[in-house]
Amino acid sequence: MAQGFGFTLTARNGAARTGVITTPRGEIRTPAFMPVGTAGTVKAMLPGSVRETGADIILGNTYHLMLRPGAERIARLGGLHRFMNWERPILTDSGGFQVMSLAGLRKLTEEGVTFASHIDGARHLLSPERSMEIQRLLGSDIVMAFDECPALPATEAELAKSMRLSMRWAQRSRDAFGDRPGHALFGIMQGGTSIALRAESAEALKAIGFDGYAIGGLAVGEPQEEMFAVLDHAPGFLPEDRPRYLMGVGKPDDIVGAVLRGVDMMDCVLPTRSGRTGQAWTRRGAVNLRNARHQEDPRPLDAQCTCPTCRSYSRAYLHHVLRAGEIIASMLLTWHNLHYFQELMAGLRQAIADGALAAFVTAFHTFRAEGDIEPL
Amino acid sequence: MAQGFGFTLTARNGAARTGVITTPRGEIRTPAFMPVGTAGTVKAMLPGSVRETGADIILGNTYHLMLRPGAERIARLGGLHRFMNWERPILTDSGGFQVMSLAGLRKLTEEGVTFASHIDGARHLLSPERSMEIQRLLGSDIVMAFDECPALPATEAELAKSMRLSMRWAQRSRDAFGDRPGHALFGIMQGGTSIALRAESAEALKAIGFDGYAIGGLAVGEPQEEMFAVLDHAPGFLPEDRPRYLMGVGKPDDIVGAVLRGVDMMDCVLPTRSGRTGQAWTRRGAVNLRNARHQEDPRPLDAQCTCPTCRSYSRAYLHHVLRAGEIIASMLLTWHNLHYFQELMAGLRQAIADGALAAFVTAFHTFRAEGDIEPL
Repeated sequence: MAQGFGFTLTARNGAARTGVITTPRGEIRTPAFMPVGTAGTVKAMLPGSVRETGADIILGNTYHLMLRPGAERIARLGGLHRFMNWERPILTDSGGFQVMSLAGLRKLTEEGVTFASHIDGARHLLSPERSMEIQRLLGSDIVMAFDECPALPATEAELAKSMRLSMRWAQRSRDAFGDRPGHALFGIMQGGTSIALRAESAEALKAIGFDGYAIGGLAVGEPQEEMFAVLDHAPGFLPEDRPRYLMGVGKPDDIVGAVLRGVDMMDCVLPTRSGRTGQAWTRRGAVNLRNARHQEDPRPLDAQCTCPTCRSYSRAYLHHVLRAGEIIASMLLTWHNLHYFQELMAGLRQAIADGALAAFVTAFHTFRAEGDIEPL
Repeated sequence: MAQGFGFTLTARNGAARTGVITTPRGEIRTPAFMPVGTAGTVKAMLPGSVRETGADIILGNTYHLMLRPGAERIARLGGLHRFMNWERPILTDSGGFQVMSLAGLRKLTEEGVTFASHIDGARHLLSPERSMEIQRLLGSDIVMAFDECPALPATEAELAKSMRLSMRWAQRSRDAFGDRPGHALFGIMQGGTSIALRAESAEALKAIGFDGYAIGGLAVGEPQEEMFAVLDHAPGFLPEDRPRYLMGVGKPDDIVGAVLRGVDMMDCVLPTRSGRTGQAWTRRGAVNLRNARHQEDPRPLDAQCTCPTCRSYSRAYLHHVLRAGEIIASMLLTWHNLHYFQELMAGLRQAIADGALAAFVTAFHTFRAEGDIEPL
């Protein structure tokens, strides 16, 4: 791996693994969930609070940051860590995924993607070389190769064409990244739902050589069983001794299924976005706090949860501040959700270390099947 | 004063005083600034953070809370302190001021005010008796008498008529409040800009007898010199040994002028509301962080400020998150503003204790006259 980086697996349980990624900015316990800090902030949270939930690393979005405030500006201000007051590891995506989703506003060529900013309409180019430059300017610890992520469903021919373009871009990303001690570069496997294309993509990436390997092109709206069908094979195509990062996942049961299948890292906007719309995640599943059933419920969201929200606030209060449109609603629910996600990861890590993952997963599903506590 | 309450003056400097109000829920150092927690939350702040800024007491709004979530509901949930997770003293207003401002939607009689809710249009009555009941249900530590607050400018006859109605309501408030150990009732002086009416109002209130006395009917849009002209006399009409609370004030220079004239308590939405619109308050005056001059400024808002915002974030970051509409912008600026207001109060208290208020006030104005630091 890159100088200053290491990855040590400390236990296996079936296909699942637990370990630690060492970086110059601190350790990342795996399996790891990375909160998303799109525009230089994990929305509605102070960085110290994000850390208190148990997060070892957060994710930043190249697309958003290049447009506002701009990568060169962040570099002049000392890099993304200092800018946003988060001194631990940051992984940045390549910008590819978000640019691709600007249907109609972007043009794809072998060189890269030209697109219009959603903020001011200005034209921009993203290419493997520019993406590497932006992520260097941001000071990202884990840099992602620039790739294309096709929408699903797609034909085998479309998936193959797209994946092979991504593999040529992976080589260009590797070349442009160069040798940067203290900074790691991850390649991204594509191939959609085709196991054969996934295998081909993995071979291409391994031939180039990366510090870690991501599984891209999933969590784009396909049914969970389709994603799991790919994950039954894809992690096994990747090197044992490198971190495996499943991009954009996911709901708690997606996370559990992915870890069972050998994934080490994940990211998703779900806990933060849900927190701003009144949806809480607990061991018993999702709870919509806008529902009138909570309006006079003095109980916490989850009596066993140790987060600041559950220790000090009733469902009735959360319902009230949501209805009143108060900022504290987003603050408290985001904190709870991130705490729950990190607690889930800690539970998974411990279960793998104890060789007790099957029992943990059974308990996880049993609790969720019970559903939320009965109304008073 | 009410059982469990006390007010001790520890120093005087000219007309200014410093001391401490003791309550069953903790001490309130005076002169005190009370952050406003309108609907059960000091907007964009967690209660622990409000306390960290140095606040000893916060204010809650009867009008907002009676409509949503409802006073009876808050009572069933254990009272406002538990509901909003603030265990220290809470002062609630009477609802009168906000109901009066619903021009066209309310009807005033000797009995009280009937009005339509701004949330769902439902009809409500607020009277001295109902206001006392609501504030009891909320569990307020310092209850305000129900009064009418006329708009300025107004004729002497209008001011007199309104003030005398408020004095009859003050008596009804006192009667309805009864004897509630651990809870204090404050009367509210009215009379607008008329010194004679202020004196008459003060006499009426003293004849009824209250635990503290507020100066109402100011900070309703009149020029500062008009407010100060009233404050040159009004505090002196009130008992020396009771707290004097100037309602709805104010900007930092309003606060300094009010303290100089013998005011002990104040409240205002300014630091919190400004925090949500990108305006910061520092020793050098107001700073608009949306201004493009800040976009690449690596300096903190105020290099000498010890708040979390100034310790860890640049003006460039604050500018960015404001422009991007991120919640953290409101969180960081509100925190800074409340910290600044509380630091100003601490400075005033210390200066009075040291007999050095004049020098403090000179330095306060000198710093402000310098204006914000030069752009880079």
